[in-house]
Amino acid sequence: MNDTISLLMNHRSVRKYTDQSVSQEQLEAIVAAGQMASSSSNVQAYSVVAVTDPDLKNKLSECAGNQAYIQECPVFLVWCADLSRLKKAADTHQPGVPSYEGAVENFVVATVDVALASQNAAVAAESLGLGIVYIGGIRNQIETVSELLGLPEYVYPVFGMCVGYPDPNHGAGLRPRLPQEAVLHMNGYHAEQNERGVQAYDETAVRYITARTNGQRTSSWSEQMAAKLTNPSRLQLRSFLESKGLNKE
Amino acid sequence: MNDTISLLMNHRSVRKYTDQSVSQEQLEAIVAAGQMASSSSNVQAYSVVAVTDPDLKNKLSECAGNQAYIQECPVFLVWCADLSRLKKAADTHQPGVPSYEGAVENFVVATVDVALASQNAAVAAESLGLGIVYIGGIRNQIETVSELLGLPEYVYPVFGMCVGYPDPNHGAGLRPRLPQEAVLHMNGYHAEQNERGVQAYDETAVRYITARTNGQRTSSWSEQMAAKLTNPSRLQLRSFLESKGLNKE
Repeated sequence: MNDTISLLMNHRSVRKYTDQSVSQEQLEAIVAAGQMASSSSNVQAYSVVAVTDPDLKNKLSECAGNQAYIQECPVFLVWCADLSRLKKAADTHQPGVPSYEGAVENFVVATVDVALASQNAAVAAESLGLGIVYIGGIRNQIETVSELLGLPEYVYPVFGMCVGYPDPNHGAGLRPRLPQEAVLHMNGYHAEQNERGVQAYDETAVRYITARTNGQRTSSWSEQMAAKLTNPSRLQLRSFLESKGLNKE
Repeated sequence: MNDTISLLMNHRSVRKYTDQSVSQEQLEAIVAAGQMASSSSNVQAYSVVAVTDPDLKNKLSECAGNQAYIQECPVFLVWCADLSRLKKAADTHQPGVPSYEGAVENFVVATVDVALASQNAAVAAESLGLGIVYIGGIRNQIETVSELLGLPEYVYPVFGMCVGYPDPNHGAGLRPRLPQEAVLHMNGYHAEQNERGVQAYDETAVRYITARTNGQRTSSWSEQMAAKLTNPSRLQLRSFLESKGLNKE
């Protein structure tokens, strides 16, 4: 254990912020830390749009299902997978040669690249006393989000991230995770570890959600996951990505 | 600036390790830190297979293009996107109801989830004095990797990660990144920032690669990216994923 691991182990999603702003210097330090994350063959296939304009934040909040914290946080980061710089390079230096920005491989590369960068940025922000929450909800209306931000071809917004100072009057809970047995497998995948781990976790999750919601929600993790996986949400993502020239071959 | 940001800013990929082993306690601490990363709706859609068996490491190294550091590192982590626990939950609690493990949305969720966890784990490992390098090369022969590890349906190996103590006789370079101008956009995407940023970076990258390879390689970043994007690598990924029930609708 050390200070950095202690910081990582104390992560919680912050959904209530004070009015204190995030300085441009802080923003640049956070993104610089993000940029130092590993990148597949140094492609750096991501961009981040920092939204501070209140009107734009309100519109993005509407797209993400009216999550108030998107309006209230001082900076809302939209992390984008971005193959546009690579496409430009290919068109310039290999004109007429087929390029593979539409391949699933490069879709994975760009999606992983942006996630590694964003997680470094999240850790940097938390080390500065800021709080964050990831917002997958921007994919609810991904086409509108994309238009609002003026995203070009070969770019897609993967997730948002609220950044700001946590409101000390709204302590966020430390959510228990799956037992490590379910997640860490030695020298091969052992499905039976999942079964035992999930069984134990279901009991933990019921206790956690019951306490957190004062008994209003009591479902186990497996029940929550079953509800989630049978929900036909964001099925338009495939065609949106194809319209941007991504994940199509 | 603080110690954590300083750690993040000093990341370099380590490709040469000492013989010193990584303890089970360290491995568990690293994965525990990974597990505390954010997860979309708490789905925790990932698993990590830790490979310490020398024979298995050798086979995985062959799959990834004979990268010696996969054989030499004491622990090779294979980070997998894993929707199998969710599928099991849906089959148990919502039998007969259509589920969407094959949707692009859930493919993105699982791919992002595993990347956030792995990056936290990378930071934790580095905070302990260990070094890491991500290995996308396992996708070269993803089907064989998947068989070697016994990965079930709804699981795919996204990338590997070598972990071990850096050999002090092989100092790894701190690779310069794109100017922040190219990556960070305020209140909307500004394509002209990319152009200026990439132009400046091309000059930086030529100097860096020329120095690092003693003049054997002198190509600019744009030239490297053009070569990469026109290379038809890993085009079998799409059909492999479909065979695992992923990214198909």
